[in-house]
Amino acid sequence: MLANVNHIFYVIIWFQMASSNIRYGEGVTREIGMDLQNMGARNVCLMTDNNLSQLSPVEAVLESLVQNGVNYKVYDNVRVEPTDSSFKEAIAFAKKETFDIYVAVGGGSVIDTCKAANLYACHPDADFLDFVNAPIGKAKPITGVLKPLIAVPTTAGTGSETTGVAIFDFEKLKAKTGIASRAIKPTLGIVDPLHTLHMPERVAANSGFDVLCHALESYTALPYNMRSPCPPNPINRPAYQGSNPISDVWSRHALNVVAKYMKRAVNDAEDVKARSSMHLASVFAGIGFGNAGVHLCHGMSYPIAGNVKTYMAKGYNVDHPVVPHGLSVVLTSPAVFAFTASMCPERHLEAAEILGADVSNTKREDAGLLLADTLRQFLYDLKVEDGLSAVGYTKDDIPDLVRGTIPQERVTKLSPREHTEEDLTNLFEASLKLY
Amino acid sequence: MLANVNHIFYVIIWFQMASSNIRYGEGVTREIGMDLQNMGARNVCLMTDNNLSQLSPVEAVLESLVQNGVNYKVYDNVRVEPTDSSFKEAIAFAKKETFDIYVAVGGGSVIDTCKAANLYACHPDADFLDFVNAPIGKAKPITGVLKPLIAVPTTAGTGSETTGVAIFDFEKLKAKTGIASRAIKPTLGIVDPLHTLHMPERVAANSGFDVLCHALESYTALPYNMRSPCPPNPINRPAYQGSNPISDVWSRHALNVVAKYMKRAVNDAEDVKARSSMHLASVFAGIGFGNAGVHLCHGMSYPIAGNVKTYMAKGYNVDHPVVPHGLSVVLTSPAVFAFTASMCPERHLEAAEILGADVSNTKREDAGLLLADTLRQFLYDLKVEDGLSAVGYTKDDIPDLVRGTIPQERVTKLSPREHTEEDLTNLFEASLKLY
Repeated sequence: MLANVNHIFYVIIWFQMASSNIRYGEGVTREIGMDLQNMGARNVCLMTDNNLSQLSPVEAVLESLVQNGVNYKVYDNVRVEPTDSSFKEAIAFAKKETFDIYVAVGGGSVIDTCKAANLYACHPDADFLDFVNAPIGKAKPITGVLKPLIAVPTTAGTGSETTGVAIFDFEKLKAKTGIASRAIKPTLGIVDPLHTLHMPERVAANSGFDVLCHALESYTALPYNMRSPCPPNPINRPAYQGSNPISDVWSRHALNVVAKYMKRAVNDAEDVKARSSMHLASVFAGIGFGNAGVHLCHGMSYPIAGNVKTYMAKGYNVDHPVVPHGLSVVLTSPAVFAFTASMCPERHLEAAEILGADVSNTKREDAGLLLADTLRQFLYDLKVEDGLSAVGYTKDDIPDLVRGTIPQERVTKLSPREHTEEDLTNLFEASLKLY
Repeated sequence: MLANVNHIFYVIIWFQMASSNIRYGEGVTREIGMDLQNMGARNVCLMTDNNLSQLSPVEAVLESLVQNGVNYKVYDNVRVEPTDSSFKEAIAFAKKETFDIYVAVGGGSVIDTCKAANLYACHPDADFLDFVNAPIGKAKPITGVLKPLIAVPTTAGTGSETTGVAIFDFEKLKAKTGIASRAIKPTLGIVDPLHTLHMPERVAANSGFDVLCHALESYTALPYNMRSPCPPNPINRPAYQGSNPISDVWSRHALNVVAKYMKRAVNDAEDVKARSSMHLASVFAGIGFGNAGVHLCHGMSYPIAGNVKTYMAKGYNVDHPVVPHGLSVVLTSPAVFAFTASMCPERHLEAAEILGADVSNTKREDAGLLLADTLRQFLYDLKVEDGLSAVGYTKDDIPDLVRGTIPQERVTKLSPREHTEEDLTNLFEASLKLY
């Protein structure tokens, strides 16, 4: 009947966007009590972290709950950059009572922790590893019905309010992994840019780098029609399918927003226009190009964060060493895009141009170097630490970092360029020092 | 706590995009049997119209059903440009058996009819007007659970595979109205551009005009932060909320696609690149800017179609007079955009530029005239009938046309410029002849 079709463009917009009930607006948080009333809430579980519990985003939410007579309990012990242990603590809290709706107020760590709490409280007999991605977990399909979850992101950001993904550090293996299922996608995302005005400067920078790399990686990911295998049965297809015409529109748009507003947003907490633009751009990551996937920067970020030794992140009020997610992702970006450029030089040139480079005299074979230099300058201007060595790594750590990247195949396989362990080694080495 | 917020940007992305499980690809139809198997289908109701039942899109679907051992029955009596009577016939068919999944293969008429059949078969005790929009119907909330519905659009297109809207002609009142609820949004849209290769030239033109006007109207609709009232309770907010940053990205993108590909698509049924681009652009309407809304072209189209006298649409193999939807929408577009331009001249200029006009010497106050002229030329090049008079209307019909527009407030209120009955009269008059 039909010609050989080897490029089914599987846009799981449902997975990425469906149920992405996103409400965006300055001050829109004050409606959350009405939403909860409309949803018939009797006992709400509000999750946040220690810092935010004292700040106005949480205050605003609580005010709305009280005004609307909504009953709730607060868990404010979410660990920034969660681990399996911190997930389990939150799960234990959720299991202690009968909550009918969850509200997560915070960054990706809070939203992800809350997703996990909801999931396992609704599957009381499940083992923790049942729903965790293979090969670390059993990746069982989620059959039970979860409670509704409202996500209120306060960073700009991970886009976690739009995804069915919850990432954590599996301490025993020093490996980042996660749970990925549309069943854990939040029911509603309340994206209130006023919350981002409270982000400390480094949090604004690092969450902005997550948006930047999301966009760059999705734009340069292996195209959807070059990905293999192509499982004939739709049910076996991966959520991340490569760059596609829909995601491309959003990747470029997000890059434009970053180029125009990120520095302003980082440098001036009261620049509402800049901070709200970055907040909206982080939503694009989830609704727009999340289905394309990310690749090497994210894949390599997992051991960079997971193997942290003593580095105490500047600007974060936490009592444990941490390399914040956005920082762990962006540190390798100059090296990565110098490496990948040969596979789609036009896209790398276009990205460089959007980020402010003059491409008029650049040959295609120099696209990677140009984008790498543009990124390096961007990172320097935004005071990013001078490479992996500045967050505690030396050349001797590289074998571990490479070993920690190999299992992240779910994302690294979207790299437009195949890579060996030797390539990964070189990329980590090239990222030891940036400037 | 917060400054006066009068511009909550209510992006019901959930309503517009959620459950918009869109799979796009050449030949992707052949998987539908696997989807139905995965969904456990025991008795599928396949709906289409008389013409399509003999053509390859339906053949392709049936082939896949047979290959995968899926049991089904076919209803091929869908009326192109449905009425309440034709909806009821389809509903009666659906009620006769216990269908567990619906498959609609066709244009907007087929998909909308199938949505209605599913809805009322699952609410056997409901009156037809229970779920129809007020004031014609009772607009009751839909509380029952519908069966899954897979929509396979064969035109490019209404975007109906992505929306919770089903439009029909209420014959007694000669008024178009509909059912609008996220409950009737299709579960899965299989967007296979190979189907559009079968569209007759006039069908390609008219469905393309729907995409064009969707995009123009959404781009120029009253901005989200200027719409009123702003119901404080989210549950009372309208689906159509005005132009917003998300919809703008898609409106512009769809306009660009129309400008680049529509003429090619209309003039050459084998131009796969052009036809598939237009097919994807029609999906954008639903997922991207549907939540912005449409306004005067669509509002005025309803009586233009509903009051048809004897006009037999060229290129349509139907046995009744009909002004195809896309045609009924585009005939007033030059007059409408000349009228609305004063409220957002930059957007009108930008639209004209995208559609190929030279805007370098155009003053803002001439934006409307320029866009109107650009549209007129575009319509002329695509052999659109010379205005309302060419589809059977005279000046004497205008009071009826105006009267038929007034109840379409759900859409006309999104016009960026307020309008009186006299304004509507002038717009219809100006549309009697285009060239």
